[in-house]
Amino acid sequence: MKTAGIPAPAVRRLSLYLRELESIWRTDQRTVSSKQLGDALKLTPTQIRKDLAYFGQFGQAGIGYDVEELITRIRRILGTDRTWNVLLVGAGNLGMALSAYRGFAKKGFKLVAVFDDDPSKIGKTLSGAPGLHIQPVSAIPAMVKEKDIRLAIIAVPAESAQGVASILVSAGVRGLLNFAPVNLDVAGNVAVSAVDLAVQLEQLSFQVGAGV
Amino acid sequence: MKTAGIPAPAVRRLSLYLRELESIWRTDQRTVSSKQLGDALKLTPTQIRKDLAYFGQFGQAGIGYDVEELITRIRRILGTDRTWNVLLVGAGNLGMALSAYRGFAKKGFKLVAVFDDDPSKIGKTLSGAPGLHIQPVSAIPAMVKEKDIRLAIIAVPAESAQGVASILVSAGVRGLLNFAPVNLDVAGNVAVSAVDLAVQLEQLSFQVGAGV
Repeated sequence: MKTAGIPAPAVRRLSLYLRELESIWRTDQRTVSSKQLGDALKLTPTQIRKDLAYFGQFGQAGIGYDVEELITRIRRILGTDRTWNVLLVGAGNLGMALSAYRGFAKKGFKLVAVFDDDPSKIGKTLSGAPGLHIQPVSAIPAMVKEKDIRLAIIAVPAESAQGVASILVSAGVRGLLNFAPVNLDVAGNVAVSAVDLAVQLEQLSFQVGAGV
Repeated sequence: MKTAGIPAPAVRRLSLYLRELESIWRTDQRTVSSKQLGDALKLTPTQIRKDLAYFGQFGQAGIGYDVEELITRIRRILGTDRTWNVLLVGAGNLGMALSAYRGFAKKGFKLVAVFDDDPSKIGKTLSGAPGLHIQPVSAIPAMVKEKDIRLAIIAVPAESAQGVASILVSAGVRGLLNFAPVNLDVAGNVAVSAVDLAVQLEQLSFQVGAGV
């Protein structure tokens, strides 16, 4: 599939369509119109049809979309119709919560290794990932190779994040979910998704302060 | 300050400028050019000057920006020159991690109450917030009034999130940081910032699968 040139917001909305479709599926509804999807997500039906059109032909005029088929196809587009082995660097509070977060596994992301350079943590396990013994960061390259890992979650303090990112990328990881509050400098063929929790609250404080 | 009509991406970048300026400040550098800021953030100097121009006059030609002054002014614009009382709903793994996350306090967000409807949790405390006894969701309205709370963090399962959001908004909360994987339906004068961790990984899997 040709994906170059597809706007990032359209890909992001694909995730939202999928989430909504999965919730519709759980109510035993089997077809859905772009209008119904749009109402639920506060988007126009035109926007939804336009986004989906980047990826092929979907739905039938007058009937709408087959929910199951659309779920299957969006999962294939997003690459979550397979299981991804994911590693986590950082076994602090945030790392612990992330390891216990069941939403990842539901989407096909399987945590297969946890790393931290705190000597007091190495060899122990996180309560959310009881089978995974925490390993030193120096063990990353071997593990990436052994488990064919392409995605990693960075949950280390700001000052360690760039070093960790460089090790991950050298080892062959191609997608980083970064929770550290710093901008990572990585090669252009590495995808980075950043979640800075304080920045999220800061944006809310701006909007609330401005009376939205 | 007039903030209507300022594009959301400009406000978002303001947070990134602030983060970078704070990091420059820690290196004892006292002035910075839009070029240096741009290089660090992979933005053009023009973009930075344009974003800042929405909020007033900044910097001096040939000298650049006074780092401390720019930090002060951006904090004021974002509303983080004051302390915000924040409440957390959801005392599971994610709630526990969020309560222990020191990045919030650094930005002026003070966690003042934790709520959960699990009877086994009520009255206990989270390790990250030892002084805050977990209260039932029914106690939210009184607490919002007592502590003048405008911002809340929702870290409950998907199926409880809308109910919690409605209670918060009725109580007077005006900004929601939502970690539940659902779209919240709230009044137009309520700001919602959503962090769906699985969606973040899904977007990475798309990019990695597509070879970025």
